[in-house]
Order: sequence, then C-alpha cells, then structure tokens
Amino acid sequence: MSDPQAPLVKFPTPPDEETVETWFDKPLTYRVQLSRNRVEALTDGVFAVAITLLVLDIKVPELQAPSDISQLAVRLLALWPKFLSYTISFVILGVYWVGHHVQLSFIRKVDRPLLWINLLFLLWVALVPFSTALLSEYPMAQIAITLYGLNLIAIGLTLALHWWYATVETKHVDPDIHPGLVRGGLLRTLIGPAVYVVSIAVSFFRPELSLLLYALVPVLYILPGRVDVHWGKHRQAPGTSPGTP
Amino acid sequence: MSDPQAPLVKFPTPPDEETVETWFDKPLTYRVQLSRNRVEALTDGVFAVAITLLVLDIKVPELQAPSDISQLAVRLLALWPKFLSYTISFVILGVYWVGHHVQLSFIRKVDRPLLWINLLFLLWVALVPFSTALLSEYPMAQIAITLYGLNLIAIGLTLALHWWYATVETKHVDPDIHPGLVRGGLLRTLIGPAVYVVSIAVSFFRPELSLLLYALVPVLYILPGRVDVHWGKHRQAPGTSPGTP
Amino acid sequence: MSDPQAPLVKFPTPPDEETVETWFDKPLTYRVQLSRNRVEALTDGVFAVAITLLVLDIKVPELQAPSDISQLAVRLLALWPKFLSYTISFVILGVYWVGHHVQLSFIRKVDRPLLWINLLFLLWVALVPFSTALLSEYPMAQIAITLYGLNLIAIGLTLALHWWYATVETKHVDPDIHPGLVRGGLLRTLIGPAVYVVSIAVSFFRPELSLLLYALVPVLYILPGRVDVHWGKHRQAPGTSPGTP
Amino acid sequence: MSDPQAPLVKFPTPPDEETVETWFDKPLTYRVQLSRNRVEALTDGVFAVAITLLVLDIKVPELQAPSDISQLAVRLLALWPKFLSYTISFVILGVYWVGHHVQLSFIRKVDRPLLWINLLFLLWVALVPFSTALLSEYPMAQIAITLYGLNLIAIGLTLALHWWYATVETKHVDPDIHPGLVRGGLLRTLIGPAVYVVSIAVSFFRPELSLLLYALVPVLYILPGRVDVHWGKHRQAPGTSPGTP
Repeated sequence: MSDPQAPLVKFPTPPDEETVETWFDKPLTYRVQLSRNRVEALTDGVFAVAITLLVLDIKVPELQAPSDISQLAVRLLALWPKFLSYTISFVILGVYWVGHHVQLSFIRKVDRPLLWINLLFLLWVALVPFSTALLSEYPMAQIAITLYGLNLIAIGLTLALHWWYATVETKHVDPDIHPGLVRGGLLRTLIGPAVYVVSIAVSFFRPELSLLLYALVPVLYILPGRVDVHWGKHRQAPGTSPGTP
Repeated sequence: MSDPQAPLVKFPTPPDEETVETWFDKPLTYRVQLSRNRVEALTDGVFAVAITLLVLDIKVPELQAPSDISQLAVRLLALWPKFLSYTISFVILGVYWVGHHVQLSFIRKVDRPLLWINLLFLLWVALVPFSTALLSEYPMAQIAITLYGLNLIAIGLTLALHWWYATVETKHVDPDIHPGLVRGGLLRTLIGPAVYVVSIAVSFFRPELSLLLYALVPVLYILPGRVDVHWGKHRQAPGTSPGTP
Repeated sequence: MSDPQAPLVKFPTPPDEETVETWFDKPLTYRVQLSRNRVEALTDGVFAVAITLLVLDIKVPELQAPSDISQLAVRLLALWPKFLSYTISFVILGVYWVGHHVQLSFIRKVDRPLLWINLLFLLWVALVPFSTALLSEYPMAQIAITLYGLNLIAIGLTLALHWWYATVETKHVDPDIHPGLVRGGLLRTLIGPAVYVVSIAVSFFRPELSLLLYALVPVLYILPGRVDVHWGKHRQAPGTSPGTP
Repeated sequence: MSDPQAPLVKFPTPPDEETVETWFDKPLTYRVQLSRNRVEALTDGVFAVAITLLVLDIKVPELQAPSDISQLAVRLLALWPKFLSYTISFVILGVYWVGHHVQLSFIRKVDRPLLWINLLFLLWVALVPFSTALLSEYPMAQIAITLYGLNLIAIGLTLALHWWYATVETKHVDPDIHPGLVRGGLLRTLIGPAVYVVSIAVSFFRPELSLLLYALVPVLYILPGRVDVHWGKHRQAPGTSPGTP
C-alpha cells in the first residue's frame, strides 16, 4: 500500500541517530499524553444517553377511542413498574457515574489498557436500558432478575478493575496516595456486586426481595463515605480568597 | 474477597503514623477535588439528548396510497399540537438549562450531596420527553396537564434545592457572595413552580388556560434579571486588551 | 414562601452599605462569567444526537420469509433515497456546526440573550431529523421540499442573528475585530438561506432541481473562505516551539 | 439584503490602511484558532450516541401470554446474534475512538479541511448502528457482511486520511515529530481496512469466517503498540511531584 521506492508523500527526515524511542525520551514539555478529558467526555456522553434512553421505554398509553379519556388515569397508573424500574436504574447509573467521577479525580494519567477497561465499563452501562426494559416487562421472572443483576455485577466489577489497575503500584495515581484510600475505594466498589450476587440467589425463592435489594444498594452509596470528609473539610473560611474552580 | 495474610496485590506501605485522614490534611496543592466540569458535561449531555428526543415524538405521516399525496399538507397541519408542545418543552428545558448554567457559574466546589441533587434534577429533566408526549397526545386531559405540571414543578424545586444547598452558609460559593444575590436567585427559581401549581389548579376548570400558563412562564425567565445587568456592564471598552474567554 | 421575621435559613449579612450592584462592581478577578464552554458542550451534544438520530430513520428491511434472502440486495437498493437524504442532512448539519464553531472562536463573552439565540438555533437543528425523514419519505412532494427548506432557512437566519448580535457594537467579540470580517461572516452565513428561498420557489415547477440545490449548498461552505487563509498562514515553522493546543 | 447606502447596523470603522489580511497578521496573542476541544466534543458525542444506540436494536422479547414465562429464557437465548454483533460493533467503535483519541493527542492545530475529514469520519461512524442491525438480522447474508465491511473500511480509510492530512509536511502536528511515528501510525490505521477487504472476499465462500475476521481485528488494536511504550515509560517515580493531569 506504500512503496518506499517511490513515496507518494515525503515525510521529514529525522536527525541521523534519532529513533522513535529516543525522540520520545527527549525532555520536552509538550510531549503528548492521552487526555483524561476525553475519557470523561465519552463516559459522560454514554451515561447521558443511557439515562435518557431509559425513559424511551415508558410509552404514552394509546386509548382505543377518544371517549375513553376517563381511562387515561388508570392506564397511567398501570405504568408504575416502568416508572419504578426507570427510577431504580437511573439511581444505580447515578451511583456508578459518581463512582467513576470520584475515581477519575484521583487518576493522573491514562494509558491504552485503562482506556479499554473504561470502554468495557461503558459496554455494560450501555446495556442497562435493555436489562431495565426486560426487568420492567417481567419483574417477577427469575431470569429477568438474574440478567439485571449480572449486568450490574459486570458494571461494578469492571469499575473495581479500573480502580485496581489505576492504583496497583500507583501506576496512574499520585505515588504518595494513601493505601487506605486505595483499599477503601476497592472495597466500597465491591460491595455492590456482592449484594447483587445475594440478590440473584434470593430471586430463586423470593423475587420481590431481590427487587428490594436492587433498590436498596444505591442508598449505601449515596451515604457519604470516608473521602467525603475530606471534601467537606476543605471549605473556604469566609473572607479568604477563593481558589479557582 | 481480600485476605490480608496473603495479599494478591501489594499496596505501598504508608509512613508509620500517617492515616487516611492526616494524608488528606497534608498541605498539598494537587489535592483532589470533584470537578465541576463533569457535572456540567453530564448535565449538558442529558439536556442535549432530552431536547433532541422531543422531536422523535413527531412522526412523519404515513399515507395509505401514493395517490394521497395531496393529503400530506392536511396531515402535516394536523401535527400542530405536537409541534406546539415540542416548542414549549424545548423552551422550558432551555429555561432550566440556562438557570443551571447561571447557578454553576457561581459554584466553586462540588461534593457528593450536590452531585446527587444534580442527578435528581436530571432524573426529572429526562422525564420531560415522556410528559411532553403525553400532553401532546391528550392536550385537554386534566391528568395529562397535571402530570406535565408536576414534572416541571419537580424540576424547579430541585433546582431551587440545588441553589439553596450550594449557598447555605456559603458552603459551595464564594464566601463573600452578596446575600441579595443568593436570595434573589432562590426566589427567581421558585416563581416557575408557583405558577405551575396555579396552572394545575386551573386545569380542573379551564384546561386551555393551563396550557397558556405553561407557555407563558418561559417568557418571564427569558427577560433579563438582575444578574444580567452585571454581565452587560462588564463590556470591554474598545481598545482595551480583551480578557481570556 | 420565605418569612423575613423567622428565616428558615440564615444567609450571611453583607457589609452595611453594599448592595448587589456595588458587589458586582468590586474589582475582583474571580467575578463570575457565563461560560462559553457550556454553550459549546450543549451545541455539540445536540449536533451529535441529531446527526446520529438521522440514521434511525434508515430501517433494516424485513423479509417475509428466510427464503427471500436473495431479495435483500434489491430491498437495500430501494433505500437509496434514505441514504441520500441522510448524507445531505449530515453534511448540511456539518456546515452549520462548522459555522457555529468558527463564530464561537471569535466570541469572548456570553450573555443571556446570546444563550437564547443559541437555543433557538438548536431548536431548528433538533428538527432536522424530522424534516429529513419527511423529505426522504416524500422526496417529490412540494410541501416536503418546502418544509425542509424552511427548516434550513430558520437555521441559517438564526446563525446570522447570532453573529450579528455578537458583533454589533463589538459587544461580545474583541473590540478591534476587523469590520470586514464581521460583514464577511454575516454575508457568508446568509448565502445558504438565500439559495434555499430560490430552492423552495423552484420546487413548484421542478422539485428535482430543488433537491439538487439542497445538495449543492454545502459545497459552497466546504470550500475555504477568507478566514481560512489566516488559519493556514499561522503554521509553525519547523524547529520553533509549538504553541499550546 | 444589506444596503450600504443606509446601513441598518453601524460597524466600527477600521484604521485606514488596515485590511482583514493585515489585521490577521498583527502579532496578537489572543488571535483566534479553531479549537481542538470542540472536535473532540462532537466526536465523543457521536461515539457515545452511536454505541448506546447499538443496544436499541436488542428488543425485549414479547410473550403471547403471561403463562409463557417459561419461554422467556429460550427467547432471550435466541437473541445471541444480537448480543454478539452488539459486542463486536461496540469494540470496533472503541478501537476507532481510541485511534482518534491517540491521533488528536498529537495534533496541535485544526483547520477547515481537517474538520471536514473528521465529519466524514463521523458520517461513517454514525452508520454503524444501521450496518450492525443489518448484520445481526442477516448474519449469513453475503450482502450484509459486505456492507458491514465497507462501512468499517470507510471508517478506517477516513481515519488514515485524517492522520495523513494532519502530518503531511507536519502541517498540524509538532514540526519535529518523528517520521517513524507518522509512518507507523498510518500503517497501523490501514491494517483494519486491509483485513476487512479480505473478510469481504472470503464472505463469498465462507461467511462464518468473515464474521470471525471482523471479531479478531479489534484484538490487534487492543494489544499495545509502539506509542504505548512511551506512555508506560513516563511513570512518575514515587516521591516526585506529580504533573498536572
């Protein structure tokens, strides 16, 4: 496709002894880094689309005749499982968006494996509108409860993997990050999948209890954690010059 | 899942006396903060998807036979309630996007509760395509008018809560922010919900009047407020060096 | 809703003589400005959703029986008006995205009216998937050609209004911007609507000519303009330190 | 539309001898450049919507009667070609998003042709949900395999064109970029289209082999390349001050 004998395009010739590797090693300030910004932008985009698509599953009731208008309220009330599963999935996606947000705030650099772990995370996130629609259509079907749980477990485990990869040997975070924070973040992320496993097991006997567990997990995560104490503490005292945002 | 006796992963050991809490207290400039950027990115994404999805509810008319082409204009005209409710919802979402934009421009830091108030705000925003489709299908049904109004009230109250939480004890804003601005912003945000309550009450007697009220509220918000005087005043005099964007 | 006698919330009391207005006038560097970033983020979001939704109108052909697989190619070929109108609309939206991008690159500050002109612009942009679906369904119907043209005219005129408002008395741009650039940008933006008016007029006699005109306008805009000479000129000479991106 | 005799709007009069061209040449630091940010934002938005829309093609099975609930698992299993093609398309789009990300990280400036090459790239990307739906509906149809392949070839070739245009005569990248990197990036980008050509050729005899090739290409790209060595090397040593993100 490119013939070195007669090149279509002339590329600049490098200084004699310089190879791609030594070029990369030159101490230049403008050396390229993969940007954390784009990871955030793609992630925020997928979450924004996914949580908005959840609503597409809630269809406006169609009445047979205009005279049936009195039926509209009844028909709307019958949509409650849709509204409930919309809300639960929205909140669960919110939990994972916040979790991703907190993780990224500690990450200083990005590389290809981290991009791909993040893409795997988004693969599962983008599936949530499907598994939510399935669950809201068949809320008592054991298979629907299981698939929904597996989807959430996949999200949680991938986010845990993301944190593990970012922090192992402090590869992508500040080298002096406190190990308690590293471990705490990992454990906190793994609570969700652990509960979802229980939820799936329970679904064989008491499906309604499984649904309750799904609804309760976000509460755990919305409660402030150890890291929140830090964010709370750094309040600016009145009268001091505020930091840049 | 992690056995301290035989760890799968070796985390760095911290200096003896340092705990997570003292680590957070170390006076380092690079200490992590949740970023306002991502809140804006998710919010802008949800608004972008929601306002574009509104159009999905306007379906191209299907003619029975190609010979019916003369009917197309009539069929398109019959879509006017869809176009009207599309426009009203678009403008109302525009009002709340601008409001969120103005609020965030005053906010200096973000914490977990603020993230969750923002997510609650987005939960209601993402519901607007549904409530709009419902209203455009049954514009004279009292229940449709009520649900649409409740959706808008929920958006407005959550945005007011967002401002209240951000400003109470000037927790997330500049400590010297003028209290008149704090109070004015809160009141301005509460006007919408107040009118929508009236609109719902009116819908029991005169549904068409309710629709008119829904259409009029955005006008109030598009008119410049007190804060706009500020933005207008800071015009650069010709010849002076312009600030960075 | 708030009783000054017994306030629910205690706001900080301001220094005696300071009003909201004098507070805004204090020469502080961190004074708030509406951010150009969010205008760009919302706009990019709406464009991204709109151009991706265009494809949703192209449906995979459904064959009656698995044995009809030989028919698939024929059925796919029959989709050509969909593909053509997808491409035209994509390119036209591309033109307006680039135009918006170029405009914003000159704008230094944003105020409420500019936000609303931008939202009006997005209102029309979000309608393009609908008017495209209409045109691709009825490509020879005069009414479909007209509505498509009116949609594009509305986009073009609003973008021209956006530029006019931003530059009149150099309110939102660098005060020393060259008037030739201001005028040139306005005229360039108005070419599209002018051609679309002709296109609608022509559609009464020769609808296929109208479609050709729609397809040709983007070509005009993809060709480099006066401003491109500038961007071309500022190439970094080899060996000089590159600017920040 | 504008009458020079009686102007509706008074634009500032420029210094006598200054033309648009000399104005652009003035050595001002704040001179305008098209921003790389918005290219990234639009691209990230289109990718986010496209990969999330892929899921819309997976429909929740509808059971004839509530008593058929035992059939649900069977019906869900029958969706496996949908899930498989969802996953393959997701990963392929991931490959191209990462590729675009890496390219942009080297690009220092943007001009109109580069914007349009990028838009052409997005045109093909936005088509992927359609070609994926086609392939998942008719996985053994030669025409579906061919169209899917052509779509991916178009994406790959446009991304190669993007890199070629950006680097030829080092127009949009650092002037001292190593030519090995320029050439390597181009070749790496062209591997995909080359394999897809083979895949289409093979589809005439062994369609299942074509599908396997589609599934294997991403593996090549997920494996770290030469450039990754660089990102890996620049790990911060423990104790040193971390760079800004």
